[in-house]
Amino acid sequence: MLKLPTPCYAVIFTSQRRLGDAGYAEAAERMVELVQQQPGFIDVRSVRGTDGLGITVSYWDSLAAIAAWRAQAEHAATRERGRANWYAHYELQVVKVERAYDWQAP
Amino acid sequence: MLKLPTPCYAVIFTSQRRLGDAGYAEAAERMVELVQQQPGFIDVRSVRGTDGLGITVSYWDSLAAIAAWRAQAEHAATRERGRANWYAHYELQVVKVERAYDWQAP
Repeated sequence: MLKLPTPCYAVIFTSQRRLGDAGYAEAAERMVELVQQQPGFIDVRSVRGTDGLGITVSYWDSLAAIAAWRAQAEHAATRERGRANWYAHYELQVVKVERAYDWQAP
Repeated sequence: MLKLPTPCYAVIFTSQRRLGDAGYAEAAERMVELVQQQPGFIDVRSVRGTDGLGITVSYWDSLAAIAAWRAQAEHAATRERGRANWYAHYELQVVKVERAYDWQAP
């Protein structure tokens, strides 16, 4: 389970894939590896449905950590590949986590 | 595309389904219908992967609107059914949207 300090911050990335892989799977795996090395990174959750709609939420301890990840050179280059090759459209929100709960079946 | 006023608020609901439907699909459809009638509701996005992990993000114009949805009787009863029948575990975060971007392929 994800144990979140509050307040913390998150990035909600909602994206619609185009058809075909075009290097996506390998790049996505590399980004998951890379993001975990970033200072201030807490956790990431990612789901994609069979219709190609996906939601990824990454959790961070500060807005500065999110800005640093945005500026990371390999990440920035991969975003360019995403716009050129992988996505039909996407939305991104930077949010502050006000409250967090979790539940597990007994 | 989702056009978000900022600031606004969101609920990130990340859940792991158990095997089997047990009335889930019908109830999920009903909740989507019901939530759209709630005051202060903006939009909702939901994705579930083939491994049963799902992320749903609902967007709201205030924390009061989120609290009212939480208190809505049919929604509360459906959450009880969820804990009894549908979910192995879940996490929920109430967040404030600080910034929002979107992009569409040209």
